[in-house]
Amino acid sequence: MIKLHQTSYIAGDWVSPDGAEFQSKNPVTGETLQTYRSCGPAETEAAMAAAHASFAEYRRCDKDQIVKFLNTVADEIEALGDQLLETADAETGLGLVRLTGERGRTCGQIRAFAAIVDEGHWVQASIDTALPDRSPLPKPDLRRMMIPIGPVVVFGASNFPFAFGSVGGDTASALAAGNPVVVKGHPSHPATSELFAHAMDRAINRTGMPSGLFSLLQGCTNELGGDLVRHEMTQAVGFTGSLAGGRALMDIAAARPRPIPVYAEMGSINPVFIAEDALASRGEEIAAGLVASVTMGTGQFCTSPGVVVTTANTEFEQAFATGLSEAARGVLLNEKIGQSLQAAITAVTSRDDVEWLNPVDISEIEVLTPPNCVLKTTAASFLADQALQEEIFGPVSLIVECDCPAEMRKVAAGLEGNLTATVHATKKDREQLAELVELLEGSVGRVIYNGFPTGVEVCPSQQHGGPYPASSASATTSVGADAMVRFARFVAYQDMPDELLPPALQNSNPYQLLRRLDGVFSDSAIGPDAERA
Amino acid sequence: MIKLHQTSYIAGDWVSPDGAEFQSKNPVTGETLQTYRSCGPAETEAAMAAAHASFAEYRRCDKDQIVKFLNTVADEIEALGDQLLETADAETGLGLVRLTGERGRTCGQIRAFAAIVDEGHWVQASIDTALPDRSPLPKPDLRRMMIPIGPVVVFGASNFPFAFGSVGGDTASALAAGNPVVVKGHPSHPATSELFAHAMDRAINRTGMPSGLFSLLQGCTNELGGDLVRHEMTQAVGFTGSLAGGRALMDIAAARPRPIPVYAEMGSINPVFIAEDALASRGEEIAAGLVASVTMGTGQFCTSPGVVVTTANTEFEQAFATGLSEAARGVLLNEKIGQSLQAAITAVTSRDDVEWLNPVDISEIEVLTPPNCVLKTTAASFLADQALQEEIFGPVSLIVECDCPAEMRKVAAGLEGNLTATVHATKKDREQLAELVELLEGSVGRVIYNGFPTGVEVCPSQQHGGPYPASSASATTSVGADAMVRFARFVAYQDMPDELLPPALQNSNPYQLLRRLDGVFSDSAIGPDAERA
Repeated sequence: MIKLHQTSYIAGDWVSPDGAEFQSKNPVTGETLQTYRSCGPAETEAAMAAAHASFAEYRRCDKDQIVKFLNTVADEIEALGDQLLETADAETGLGLVRLTGERGRTCGQIRAFAAIVDEGHWVQASIDTALPDRSPLPKPDLRRMMIPIGPVVVFGASNFPFAFGSVGGDTASALAAGNPVVVKGHPSHPATSELFAHAMDRAINRTGMPSGLFSLLQGCTNELGGDLVRHEMTQAVGFTGSLAGGRALMDIAAARPRPIPVYAEMGSINPVFIAEDALASRGEEIAAGLVASVTMGTGQFCTSPGVVVTTANTEFEQAFATGLSEAARGVLLNEKIGQSLQAAITAVTSRDDVEWLNPVDISEIEVLTPPNCVLKTTAASFLADQALQEEIFGPVSLIVECDCPAEMRKVAAGLEGNLTATVHATKKDREQLAELVELLEGSVGRVIYNGFPTGVEVCPSQQHGGPYPASSASATTSVGADAMVRFARFVAYQDMPDELLPPALQNSNPYQLLRRLDGVFSDSAIGPDAERA
Repeated sequence: MIKLHQTSYIAGDWVSPDGAEFQSKNPVTGETLQTYRSCGPAETEAAMAAAHASFAEYRRCDKDQIVKFLNTVADEIEALGDQLLETADAETGLGLVRLTGERGRTCGQIRAFAAIVDEGHWVQASIDTALPDRSPLPKPDLRRMMIPIGPVVVFGASNFPFAFGSVGGDTASALAAGNPVVVKGHPSHPATSELFAHAMDRAINRTGMPSGLFSLLQGCTNELGGDLVRHEMTQAVGFTGSLAGGRALMDIAAARPRPIPVYAEMGSINPVFIAEDALASRGEEIAAGLVASVTMGTGQFCTSPGVVVTTANTEFEQAFATGLSEAARGVLLNEKIGQSLQAAITAVTSRDDVEWLNPVDISEIEVLTPPNCVLKTTAASFLADQALQEEIFGPVSLIVECDCPAEMRKVAAGLEGNLTATVHATKKDREQLAELVELLEGSVGRVIYNGFPTGVEVCPSQQHGGPYPASSASATTSVGADAMVRFARFVAYQDMPDELLPPALQNSNPYQLLRRLDGVFSDSAIGPDAERA
């Protein structure tokens, strides 16, 4: 068992700041847990300076060292054992089964990034050899690859305390790409965050990495987040959370003297379209799947299906409403989320154009154990008021009833950006499908056929990100191999002597990479050039 | 000969707006040329609506059609013949030789993008096949590739009226990636821009493309640019120009309800480091190369070497100063640039810590034919005042004199973002070189060894972009194959029936692409999956 310091962690030191006190709370029992204090400007400065200083040293590590380090991080997270699961369960109420699965996924993705670093292709090496005799001008030798950018600030998310937490996908991908990371831990689960810092501390020490490579700043203030994004050493930001929070960070980053990218994964309503024949032939089966998907993690998954677009079908509606009413109520992560959800349910259900299909007495709702709600509106109302496209974070889904398939396509065309869109269809429905898929791919990151949006497979072909407001940078993904390239940039070397080039670009191709060689993929070595200097 | 309409061009129509009048002027003769009027909100709306409407139709074109279209654009630009060269020469004073070369480069890069579209790899197709029997959860089939984003706004640049003009690299890469483009033509050369619109008009008609695919809005107001960036249909912006201009567009884009990316290539001083032995053994040769590089295009190249970092060496300084004094004076593009340059020279040469090595009487300077200036300061001054790192757009270079190689590295560490950095060295210098290159690659997009920064080879390994203020998005390039990915984003398809997938992701691999197949590069087709619906 690790004895918790109840502090922050800056470049190898356990640091007690003197900022505002905050406490984590067990959302299931109401019990108050550990007390922490918020970091302030001094800790931001110390962590960023240490990160900056460690960057040059980390840059000199070869890829085997980075691979070993990442795998050791995963080992050390697993070595935290039941303490991690129990601490996180106490702080989040997510349950040991879910958290055990999330730990597996988290360590799996760290090891997947290690494997990507080991393989080496992620740097996208490209070589154009010289043509010294070309007329009218000789062509230089140009070689290009991705390199890391420097200190990255990551905001731990509340809803995935492991997978998107202090050492979640953003931290792991930034480290894998070669960057130091400073994490702002989520104030809902500070002890969980601290345990990850212990794992990082051990991994850094065991592999001889520079101590500034990782810091964890605990805190409950917006100022701390703002200071980290504004710090001149910060090169990029990773964030998973609310639209309001993500947009605030985007605005701060854009207003810097030197703007930096913010990779924020934010609000998404993940519409599910059910075509007519699918609705008629297996509406109840789809309703059951939706119930499971909506209630997963108490509706706190970023891919939770918040909108269902169908033509009218009473059986489906009833099955969906009954299923959600009968499903066990989950527990929300914290009171802030509970209060926001209650306000949102009150607001939306008071609208004349929204019907609540499985209503409960809202005055009796326990803020942390909300009802699983299904609402209904018309396509016309949905299209007329963008407020109905705002994410309601929790186990709530809105049926958008359409007159006909053409109106469903109108709804598809009117959607804002989303992480996912789903289509349920049968072969009979396919005629109308091409156009629907085309409309949906225009505004989402992932189109799912006959499935459900929750459950984000970690694999190279995953795309977790979508047009704003789903994410701040729709071309990028926060899950999968390409998450690393968010924290890298290209550099080209012109006529550089071989020994000054990074290994990925050297003549001998020591990593045996498939490189673009004069435009064509090749794993060949290149004959030694004439000595240039 | 094409009869000029002296208008804008919106989706196939020649449109006369009623905004502010402006005229192009021959910078060599002073002659006033054609008169145009500025577009306003109505033209912005019309062009963006047409672009948006054309997007769906353009999306349905297969890659052969896009390839044919792009090659036809290049053909039609060439078919403009001498009229294009003469018109551009009259409006820019760049000379027929340079413009002939730039036309070749411009058509070459359009055809290069056509070849990239034809090859098909740029979409980065990746397929992870399903594992339906995986425990505890089945793995879905996921397939991912890049798709276009929609209407792109491009700002034509003054300094490369062809290569970064109305149908320059930004326009060509956006079209190649599958997007409609609305161009704001540069007010310095409206007739040149109009000729490109004629070429586009012919290419669009000859290949049956939708007319909204290209519009050219002429204008001399900042409002027009702002309106285009603010328009809700606009998905991304391409810009080459001043830091002030680029930053203004970045700020507008970041403040939108739905922020969009601005790919701005802006200020860069392109430092040239000359190591001690190189300076001693071939200082005069390097000075001669610098003279040619500084005066190229009257110093109006984005990669013009504005700073030279060396240890003290009187012979080199004299050779550089004499060479620049003796070099023919070029002509600037327009009076605005001339006035800014004169103000900048006056300001910097009035500093106590800056010496002007080849001074002339500034009161006698013709604003459009500036002197080729070499200035000198100390490393201490340079490091103490960031104002000395501001780009002076014109044939001006500042020697930063260092005490020793260690101080040169200090200067390298203190640099802001740049497009390029150059190192001149001999074998004897190499000992100190690794660290210098490491420092420089941290703040630039391209590191050049024993060469000169001007001359940006168009090839897949080119990187034209660098950390801010050199560009707004340092991970991207505005020259080379990857310029296209700025105007695309990833989308993933989960369990999608084969016939609903784009060809690049279909089982049969109709484009014979090298795809990531379960993580490994492969050009294999995939056996038909079990029918899913």
